Amino acid sequence: MPELRKDPVVGRWVIISTERSRRPTNFTPDSLVKSQSFSPFAEGREDMTPPEVYAVRASGGKANGPGWSVRVVPNKFPALQVEGSLDRRGEGMYDKMHGVGAHEVVIEGSSPDQQLADLSVEHIAQVAVAWRERMLDLKKDKRLRYCLVFKNQGAGAGATLEHAHSQIIATPIVPQMVQAELDGARKYYELKERNVYADILDQEMNEANGRRLVSTTERFVALAPFAPRFPFETWILPRAHRSSFHMIDDREEMLDFGRILKDTLQRLNVALDNPPFNFVLHTAPLGDDDLPYYHWHLEIMPKLTRVAGFEIGSGFYINPTPPEDAAQYLREIVALT
Amino acid sequence: MPELRKDPVVGRWVIISTERSRRPTNFTPDSLVKSQSFSPFAEGREDMTPPEVYAVRASGGKANGPGWSVRVVPNKFPALQVEGSLDRRGEGMYDKMHGVGAHEVVIEGSSPDQQLADLSVEHIAQVAVAWRERMLDLKKDKRLRYCLVFKNQGAGAGATLEHAHSQIIATPIVPQMVQAELDGARKYYELKERNVYADILDQEMNEANGRRLVSTTERFVALAPFAPRFPFETWILPRAHRSSFHMIDDREEMLDFGRILKDTLQRLNVALDNPPFNFVLHTAPLGDDDLPYYHWHLEIMPKLTRVAGFEIGSGFYINPTPPEDAAQYLREIVALT
Repeated sequence: MPELRKDPVVGRWVIISTERSRRPTNFTPDSLVKSQSFSPFAEGREDMTPPEVYAVRASGGKANGPGWSVRVVPNKFPALQVEGSLDRRGEGMYDKMHGVGAHEVVIEGSSPDQQLADLSVEHIAQVAVAWRERMLDLKKDKRLRYCLVFKNQGAGAGATLEHAHSQIIATPIVPQMVQAELDGARKYYELKERNVYADILDQEMNEANGRRLVSTTERFVALAPFAPRFPFETWILPRAHRSSFHMIDDREEMLDFGRILKDTLQRLNVALDNPPFNFVLHTAPLGDDDLPYYHWHLEIMPKLTRVAGFEIGSGFYINPTPPEDAAQYLREIVALT
Repeated sequence: MPELRKDPVVGRWVIISTERSRRPTNFTPDSLVKSQSFSPFAEGREDMTPPEVYAVRASGGKANGPGWSVRVVPNKFPALQVEGSLDRRGEGMYDKMHGVGAHEVVIEGSSPDQQLADLSVEHIAQVAVAWRERMLDLKKDKRLRYCLVFKNQGAGAGATLEHAHSQIIATPIVPQMVQAELDGARKYYELKERNVYADILDQEMNEANGRRLVSTTERFVALAPFAPRFPFETWILPRAHRSSFHMIDDREEMLDFGRILKDTLQRLNVALDNPPFNFVLHTAPLGDDDLPYYHWHLEIMPKLTRVAGFEIGSGFYINPTPPEDAAQYLREIVALT
């Protein structure tokens, strides 16, 4: 069974996948992205994945058959295991627990030829609804504290399959970066009695002359953050206060999110020639539905430079592109949507 | 002038190199490691680097001429600038300061054909002395709060030159990961009135049946940490209490450090077929010479898996090799030194 282990100094939890231990000889150079023609995620190959836990079938059709536009299935090689108790325990001075959790794949479209940015706004909104529905379902499991939605697109960003998909990992712990945000946002709120993300939006939209803005819609803002780790790092934030992503229960809001996500990805594709990228959805922990001090947001990180262990080992980043320059390049791309 | 900017939520400082801004078209695929025959670091090409700030010349010889075994020079393309005041200031709600600091290259040997692990124990100790001497010198500059020593070896680990070298970045801020360690170690000390690293060493050497130990010398321990982020992540720690690396003023201690570093790198080379790797030296901030709660250590991270933005965006790591297995493989390598 996989194990969750906590670093005794910094408190960072890691998943140790004890079940499929990798021997020294098993670390081959980066695995190749499989040819699209063999995509196990394509329509008609539903038997190549574990049975679905969610799907969008606009014109009906049977579960695990064709006729879907978005489909969520358990990961065939999950990092965590759904069954079992947490069994939190010590090992001398250390802390660990069973690697209980969910690891799911959101297949974003039925064709292996389309990437997320190629899908219609309506279709992208369906993908976001799939994230929300899975969050709401996983939230019922009281063992789980967090639901992390992320996407690796392109071999350079760690994807092993080219077919458009995002992933969901639900865990009994809150990821370290999100916990750092929650702590920082809470401290700011205690000091200022204001939400730090609302202040960021206010400054970016009103005082900073919009020089770090990429685009805005009725309900969302895409911007280059003031202190980005990576060139062309771009965040999407809701204008209204929402601490959890799954609080979006409005069809118009989901469509507007689909609109700004498609627009942002297209701008990055044009500016940077379809770069590999990652995005990570930061949202409040499951069960903490309405935190006055937090604001969910999506962090998009094009993979343009090789991240050296130096950055990972120190948490110190050197970014050769000022966010004001990156935002300007992205703003100047003629909107394609 | 480069700028240091602080994320308003998590407090992470990043360097924005405003002077050499990268345009979208300037992000070429990973730059190639230049052929060894053109190494600008080789003996006889001293005029290809900025003038040296430190060198080991056992048989004498002029500065910036041949006859050296270790040589430290300013980075030709520094991320930070030595001259100027910090000028800490706000920009609305944000914090920033001038990117003041030092960025140096430690050329570990005069021949482009030898990697760090190939050098003699005595020579590796000279490299470590060079780190110490630069730390002690940079410490005199009261603007600087931290001196980060790190190494990227191999293109896969972010190196752009094959010639053996490590780097030193001295900054007016403490890197986030080190600050997290300092905070965590201080809390542990307040709670237990013991040093957390001393407790780790005690548990690993006495209670854990040595199953995470890689090797030990008279004064140092190499081990796989309990909750490693990466397969075969290996730390080297001093057995005695030392919060700062530059506190090593004993020749025998430096030689012993050279011995365990060479041994550990050789074990990793044999087990993993000369993997690209990074290491980062975690030590107390400059000026905080003797912290009772902290312990310097070297974190070595072979680059075997592609780190996806997911890990960087969440701080959540999935490691397919339990540290007990990794330590066993490394222990079983017959020592070559």
